[in-house]
Amino acid sequence: MRELGPVALWRALCGAGEPPPGASAERIAGCRLRAERLDPAGDLAVAAARGGRFVCPGDLEWPGQLDDLGDARPVGLWVRGRPSLRMWALRSVAVVGARACSDYGAHVAATLGAGLAERGWVVVSGAAHGVDGAVHRGALAADGATIAVLASGVDIPYPRGHAELIERIAEQGLVLAELPPGAHPTRSRFVLRNRVIAALTRGTVVVEAQYRSGSLVTARRALKLGRHTMGVPGPVTSGLSSGVHELLRGEAVLVTDADEVAELVGGIGELAPARQGPLVERDLLDPVTARVLEALSAQGGSDGREVARDSGTSCEEALSRLYELLALGFVERHGDRWELAPTDRRKDGTRRGDPQIWGNRVKGLRR
Amino acid sequence: MRELGPVALWRALCGAGEPPPGASAERIAGCRLRAERLDPAGDLAVAAARGGRFVCPGDLEWPGQLDDLGDARPVGLWVRGRPSLRMWALRSVAVVGARACSDYGAHVAATLGAGLAERGWVVVSGAAHGVDGAVHRGALAADGATIAVLASGVDIPYPRGHAELIERIAEQGLVLAELPPGAHPTRSRFVLRNRVIAALTRGTVVVEAQYRSGSLVTARRALKLGRHTMGVPGPVTSGLSSGVHELLRGEAVLVTDADEVAELVGGIGELAPARQGPLVERDLLDPVTARVLEALSAQGGSDGREVARDSGTSCEEALSRLYELLALGFVERHGDRWELAPTDRRKDGTRRGDPQIWGNRVKGLRR
Repeated sequence: MRELGPVALWRALCGAGEPPPGASAERIAGCRLRAERLDPAGDLAVAAARGGRFVCPGDLEWPGQLDDLGDARPVGLWVRGRPSLRMWALRSVAVVGARACSDYGAHVAATLGAGLAERGWVVVSGAAHGVDGAVHRGALAADGATIAVLASGVDIPYPRGHAELIERIAEQGLVLAELPPGAHPTRSRFVLRNRVIAALTRGTVVVEAQYRSGSLVTARRALKLGRHTMGVPGPVTSGLSSGVHELLRGEAVLVTDADEVAELVGGIGELAPARQGPLVERDLLDPVTARVLEALSAQGGSDGREVARDSGTSCEEALSRLYELLALGFVERHGDRWELAPTDRRKDGTRRGDPQIWGNRVKGLRR
Repeated sequence: MRELGPVALWRALCGAGEPPPGASAERIAGCRLRAERLDPAGDLAVAAARGGRFVCPGDLEWPGQLDDLGDARPVGLWVRGRPSLRMWALRSVAVVGARACSDYGAHVAATLGAGLAERGWVVVSGAAHGVDGAVHRGALAADGATIAVLASGVDIPYPRGHAELIERIAEQGLVLAELPPGAHPTRSRFVLRNRVIAALTRGTVVVEAQYRSGSLVTARRALKLGRHTMGVPGPVTSGLSSGVHELLRGEAVLVTDADEVAELVGGIGELAPARQGPLVERDLLDPVTARVLEALSAQGGSDGREVARDSGTSCEEALSRLYELLALGFVERHGDRWELAPTDRRKDGTRRGDPQIWGNRVKGLRR
């Protein structure tokens, strides 16, 4: 993969090109056997039928911060949902935690999800039972932006009980999967999934986690990647908070509400769009997003419904574009009302704060 | 005070010596008026009637770490109780918190008080309602060592409802006051009291505190003095934990149980008697403590009752001496059983880890 790249490697394995160098004949034969059972075109068709697409490094939509994973970088991501993954990921924060969470954990997770969404943050989680589900629901309830990263294929809702929730996220936000359509989750796939959550976002918040919980793996990965790593404390008498407390006795930062999370992950002047102007030029916006921005510009400020009407899009489409524009620093949200960001903040339209440099930047600034 | 010292100043004010230099006649007259109303001999008599004494810098019993307070060092402390204040303070930790604490706070406080006492730590608090009271009760219930630092005189139990508790502490532990007998607590006196708690101990743990709570003042003072400052987290939905969480977002260390507190405050090799041998020579022990140690040496190991019998002291007296010996590194406690510390740890009887240098030592080692 590293030497040939995926396309040349695929051709070589299918016999349509030179055999890959440096690998034993046995190994190549094994890979060929596996390759024969794969059906990339079929996978693309299945994903497309669900409104999905495949995004890989080099694509405009590829979130560059995933490159921080080095050799562990995913080959690509299967994506369902209208918004641009790259744009949404720019201003995203992960909230994860215990499946078997307490009422307290569910309450805190939902409140954080809603609060972060209201502050214009894209809330990322794993769609699992417990904390994950509560986080997504909180963000959706606030008409906010949310991304579910699955350990299965984008067409296999897991857990089953969250099929409806995952469908709603695919409609209002984004559903991601590293594995191709049809793949079912396994234990090791959850761990792999967690590294994507950690790398995709500016920071990870853990709400309730026992010792040796998978959420702690995500959090430690985030730490290693130089992302902000946060934990919400709970009663010391609760085993469900013990893992979080362990994390907080290390390098993680204690947070008690969405404001404190936003302050931390948004505190990097160069990367906080609201303080520094848009991250991309207006000309680079895709046509629908540009139309939504134009509609809002004409109105000066309005709610999502008016923007949708004037831009000729659905309400959901308009909202997802508005969140994209928010992430890019073109607009601001005040409750239900959307407004253009002050002009003086948008003077310089050059591409700044490229997410590919997050890791190092954030590392240098961590306390 | 700084120039003349207390005795010469007192004589000067009472007209029995030269008038103090550098002060205006008016100021001297004012001080004389106040001095006339004081009755040091009477105060000493009142304290003595309650089994109390006055300890000041220069006395053998003076806890040298209070010198870290600089100009804010108390002139002296009124002490009730058998144990040596200096010896007990060597291995002490403060646990403070909200008066109007929750059931959770009271539970955590009592558990910490008992757990620290069981690990041979002297538990210091302010005898107030809520967390303070629970901490003392926890330590007493574990037959442990505890010190109450009052904001009133040692003969004025405050709060009234804790009169019985304070009396028990005076019998089994120590009750301290900076103010002379008869003094009643005022708002500012609580703040003054808090600095004594912070300076006397190796570290301060806060269990439940709202924003702007007095316990936070103690904790911040402890931080400034280079003492370990710790907080027990709670639900973020509880206002009673909000002050603690604020503290934990700063320099304080999150702790969830007595083990974690003991690990932190006891972690300084040179100062942890169990690891480094006794802090004073055997010859310097007072006669009763020496007799208790001798009784235990003869038996090899036994419970407090046997030691009391063989040393010819009361059970309570024996226990308080055993705790003193524990703090000094001569003995170890295993449940109800007391044993001599391994001989090889006691080879070097020189005076080490003088508490007067705590501040700097601890400062250098804080993370």
